[in-house]
Amino acid sequence: MKRVVLLRHGESLWNRENRFTGWTDVDLTNQGIREAYEAARLLKEQNFIFGKAYTSLLKRAIKTLNCVLDGLNQDWIPVEKSWRLNEKHYGVLQGLNKSETTKKYGEKQVLEWRRSYDIAPEALSENDPRNPRFDIRYHEIPLNELPRTEALKNTVARLLPYWCNHIYPALNQYNEILVTAHGNSLRAIVKYLKNISDQDIIQLNLPTGVPYVFEFDEHLHPIRDYFLGDPEKIEESMKAVANQAK
Amino acid sequence: MKRVVLLRHGESLWNRENRFTGWTDVDLTNQGIREAYEAARLLKEQNFIFGKAYTSLLKRAIKTLNCVLDGLNQDWIPVEKSWRLNEKHYGVLQGLNKSETTKKYGEKQVLEWRRSYDIAPEALSENDPRNPRFDIRYHEIPLNELPRTEALKNTVARLLPYWCNHIYPALNQYNEILVTAHGNSLRAIVKYLKNISDQDIIQLNLPTGVPYVFEFDEHLHPIRDYFLGDPEKIEESMKAVANQAK
Repeated sequence: MKRVVLLRHGESLWNRENRFTGWTDVDLTNQGIREAYEAARLLKEQNFIFGKAYTSLLKRAIKTLNCVLDGLNQDWIPVEKSWRLNEKHYGVLQGLNKSETTKKYGEKQVLEWRRSYDIAPEALSENDPRNPRFDIRYHEIPLNELPRTEALKNTVARLLPYWCNHIYPALNQYNEILVTAHGNSLRAIVKYLKNISDQDIIQLNLPTGVPYVFEFDEHLHPIRDYFLGDPEKIEESMKAVANQAK
Repeated sequence: MKRVVLLRHGESLWNRENRFTGWTDVDLTNQGIREAYEAARLLKEQNFIFGKAYTSLLKRAIKTLNCVLDGLNQDWIPVEKSWRLNEKHYGVLQGLNKSETTKKYGEKQVLEWRRSYDIAPEALSENDPRNPRFDIRYHEIPLNELPRTEALKNTVARLLPYWCNHIYPALNQYNEILVTAHGNSLRAIVKYLKNISDQDIIQLNLPTGVPYVFEFDEHLHPIRDYFLGDPEKIEESMKAVANQAK
């Protein structure tokens, strides 16, 4: 049996401050680091031995991965990092406090921006210092592929080629693969694997720091998916994510 | 100008206990983690922007690298890990306390094992649980390449193909490269770059956690090398390493 584990990074500084993060490179809190080691403990209990790991180009996901591999004593496995696993780009909302944005634009508009499948927040201007083209880590990516805002639809579109051409084919070589990324980039993978509709995927709130396991049969078809850990805590965590903008 | 930085991992648990470590996968101490962040601080002062990093398959080197990249906010760069950057394999000495070994075998014999260029400690037996063939991280390496002991000469021989075929050619693509590894694997690189004799390389004691910079000219010839940091502290650290078995 082959398994892919999806893991959303632990709490970041801006999660705590309830600000839209997107592509901003914010660090984990100590709580976020603890969540990562707790995820490692759960994976160790289930005897996961990862052959390869994938993560984004953002510190909070990379550091979560480093902590998990440290906790598992599997630091030595190959790790591939890609901008395609980055969080959804939140355009001009990046850096704003979610509650304040709600006051300013109203809950409905904010929920639409955060959770509609195909409506993106206003884009960063070409010369906004937050435009990814000014960031050295994206210098090798063609300008026309670099987002200045994204709807979930756009995140799905730039992520799927990476799933299909990099992560999924690696299941031929490795039995167990770890993907450490972000709420929306992981949503894109879940949507694809479970064939979830554009409407329903918006309701899916992945808990932070909880390993989400997908099992594949010998034809590499996904057959089963489940979270590791205490179901009550997981439900609480999912509700907390859903209520962030309230 | 192109630059390669060699960095020996910070203090590990067995450095502290003064035991022969070799390929044993021992963790860093908190002091070792602090050394790594201090190395990051020195590199930041000199505005290093690494394009790629290389490390061994051993936790103490990988974790040192992770801390340095965290401190530099360059977590996102590609990292390649290879067993060829591992520490020298110390054969049956692995796990023994250095002072006790000295009492048992005499200072001369131990110094010969630790520091002679071509005399290796006694090899692990084929079925010794410490034989790397039982460790999943080395499963893809041909059995006849996996050491059960090494003289520095053997470490040099398995490391140089990696330097020549992987790290050095990457200077065509990247201006600055970071190599985080071990006392003896880094000695092998320094020996090659500076054309140091078999006798003299034995006397070279690289300090832990101190960035060692090599500059290359436009033809990729090494032209200058120097340590970053306080020269007095570096000399103290080199002496401490030299005196470990006394």
